[in-house]
Amino acid sequence: MSKRYFSKRVLEMRPSMIRELVKKYYGKADIVDLTSGKPHPSTFPVEIIKELINDALDKASAAVLQYGPTLGYSELIKQLKSFIEKRYGINLSNQDIIVTTGSAQALDLIGATLINPGEVLIVEAPTYTNAIDAFTQYNAKFVQIPIDEQGMMVEKVEEELRRLRSDGVNVKFLYTIPTFHNPAGITMSEDRRKYLLELASKYDFLIVEDDAYRELSYSDEVVPPAIKRWDSEGRVIYCGTFSKVLAPGFRVGWMVAEPETIRMFEIVKQRRDLHTSTFCQFIASEYIRRGYLEQHVLKIRQFYRPKLKVMLNALEEYMPEGFTWTKPEGGMFVWVIGPTGLNTTYMLSRAVENGVAYVPGEAFYVDGSVKNAMRLNFSFPDEEEIAEGVKRLAKTCSEEIIQR
Amino acid sequence: MSKRYFSKRVLEMRPSMIRELVKKYYGKADIVDLTSGKPHPSTFPVEIIKELINDALDKASAAVLQYGPTLGYSELIKQLKSFIEKRYGINLSNQDIIVTTGSAQALDLIGATLINPGEVLIVEAPTYTNAIDAFTQYNAKFVQIPIDEQGMMVEKVEEELRRLRSDGVNVKFLYTIPTFHNPAGITMSEDRRKYLLELASKYDFLIVEDDAYRELSYSDEVVPPAIKRWDSEGRVIYCGTFSKVLAPGFRVGWMVAEPETIRMFEIVKQRRDLHTSTFCQFIASEYIRRGYLEQHVLKIRQFYRPKLKVMLNALEEYMPEGFTWTKPEGGMFVWVIGPTGLNTTYMLSRAVENGVAYVPGEAFYVDGSVKNAMRLNFSFPDEEEIAEGVKRLAKTCSEEIIQR
Repeated sequence: MSKRYFSKRVLEMRPSMIRELVKKYYGKADIVDLTSGKPHPSTFPVEIIKELINDALDKASAAVLQYGPTLGYSELIKQLKSFIEKRYGINLSNQDIIVTTGSAQALDLIGATLINPGEVLIVEAPTYTNAIDAFTQYNAKFVQIPIDEQGMMVEKVEEELRRLRSDGVNVKFLYTIPTFHNPAGITMSEDRRKYLLELASKYDFLIVEDDAYRELSYSDEVVPPAIKRWDSEGRVIYCGTFSKVLAPGFRVGWMVAEPETIRMFEIVKQRRDLHTSTFCQFIASEYIRRGYLEQHVLKIRQFYRPKLKVMLNALEEYMPEGFTWTKPEGGMFVWVIGPTGLNTTYMLSRAVENGVAYVPGEAFYVDGSVKNAMRLNFSFPDEEEIAEGVKRLAKTCSEEIIQR
Repeated sequence: MSKRYFSKRVLEMRPSMIRELVKKYYGKADIVDLTSGKPHPSTFPVEIIKELINDALDKASAAVLQYGPTLGYSELIKQLKSFIEKRYGINLSNQDIIVTTGSAQALDLIGATLINPGEVLIVEAPTYTNAIDAFTQYNAKFVQIPIDEQGMMVEKVEEELRRLRSDGVNVKFLYTIPTFHNPAGITMSEDRRKYLLELASKYDFLIVEDDAYRELSYSDEVVPPAIKRWDSEGRVIYCGTFSKVLAPGFRVGWMVAEPETIRMFEIVKQRRDLHTSTFCQFIASEYIRRGYLEQHVLKIRQFYRPKLKVMLNALEEYMPEGFTWTKPEGGMFVWVIGPTGLNTTYMLSRAVENGVAYVPGEAFYVDGSVKNAMRLNFSFPDEEEIAEGVKRLAKTCSEEIIQR
């Protein structure tokens, strides 16, 4: 079919670099795949899922197989409310919930509901590729703020806000993954979280808090509370997902926000997919209600903790000089930064020849400007694969540096 | 949260009239609900689903609970290809398939991929409300073409095409539900199907063929082939769904189109929900592979056939003079047209007082201009409810006419 049939909108969209990489390298023999954002299948609570599903089909098939409300299955919303209040200390009295088809849909609903063409968003540098893609659809402009081991550098946020205000530009929202960041693995400090909220109030913008990795904590340190916890002005849209704590194959995520905002999300969602699978929502709901989520997450943590350690140890052991990396205490990723001048996109073909694949850092920058970093995943490969993969990566990096 | 945070886009969207009605009247005691578009839960193949799921969790949990490709689970695509070729006689050699999160998502992907603001679409009058909503998001303009018992009036399509061409306006696509139309229940004749394709070629537009109800045939008449079957120029985007033949709670639909078009849908879908539930796709895939779909659809037809008959008989028996209705041979709906001057939106509160609810006809018109029609559903209510509901509706209509 000729190009002229397609909308200008779609012709401007680029395929997701990560999804294209996954297509290209996934499952190839002899390649250690560090590109993934996948949970390890051993973390899927298969027996629990079986129990929940057989009960559902025995007792509630007429409901769980039927169409459902756009906002979500009412019992899941109830379970989420009580879970979020109890476990995250978020007061939900003036808030409401919408269930989303994975957290990917949450980003799309946020974009469609909030962004007018040309409006400015603040995001971390690096940030989640799919968030860039989701918001770019709606012609957002981005201001990227660097991160350090304490998360987004809030003083730079304030600088930018001042500069923008003096140019007469308002910020629509700030998007952050404060806990076990994707791709960087780092966690924003409590002070910075509170400071961001103060800035949001002072400069009148919203905060989208993507907390997909909160439960994946592998240290004994207490994870800082969600920014949403201190949100007295209803400025924070809080996003969570079952993909990392149950299974991504169900595509169930959720958002907490003020009722008027949720109502707008609902109107957009009616036009996106009517509602999320009732069946999958039922599983998620019972998974909370029967107490399995809280139990099972402990097992997931036990399972990932040594994998992270293997990756950090292997990096320490094998990587050549000139490379640094983050030291995450949770999540799924380590972020490696090479010497200035290194181009990890260019290096990828050499890496694949050496039997390892990663996601080049530029995928996580709005303008693709940072070329010397890469994201390594430790949740999906096995421990030996991680060690071997990092070894191959280190060899690749050494070769690449000598070549230059 | 203040309105000023919301995008212009979302502030222009109206909540779906049907979804709002469903929220308002569904499950209310003493109201016969003829508003629904739901399958009856007795048609859900619960035991088959159990078998498929337990097998999946025993043998393939690592795959079915994991992230999957945006285009869809490869085995489902394979099964769909062979099913569509064999059963619908559609040649798929130059075509490709994408799995969607229900057919609702198909409409959204079509809108995002094809419509530039202000472009003209041709649709039936009446047409599926959610299609109007989906395409309106992308600022389409609509030309509505009346239908009769043979479907969309193709000579009027041609008239409009000539008029538009003389004004220098091109049509982007024509959207039709040719088989057991929603809301009207009628089926487009074979001649008209072929003629539409000729027009598409002559006037250079695409056809979106929404064939959600094709399998729900209750007469011995052979259903006319899909328009897609004669599509030699790759002009038809063909949409199907498992919602009516398996269960809507899984949210699995699909589209067939040329590979370049499917590729564009994929890029948009990456930004919508990454992919449709792998788990639900697996169930759909095995449902075809094990031959259950073809078997079970026969049972569904047996189940709905008498319901349709009860509705048509009750209309014949109870409705006052001045009312006509379609005589569908399949699908889920009968379309009732009242005398000129009747306002079914206005009449609805009286109907509810009398214990029956329907969807007012204006919901199915782009401009809401036709006020004297209504859509009645016979798939969801039981046979006695249908008879009683139509009786109450007839009483309501009589009262309303006298009052005027």
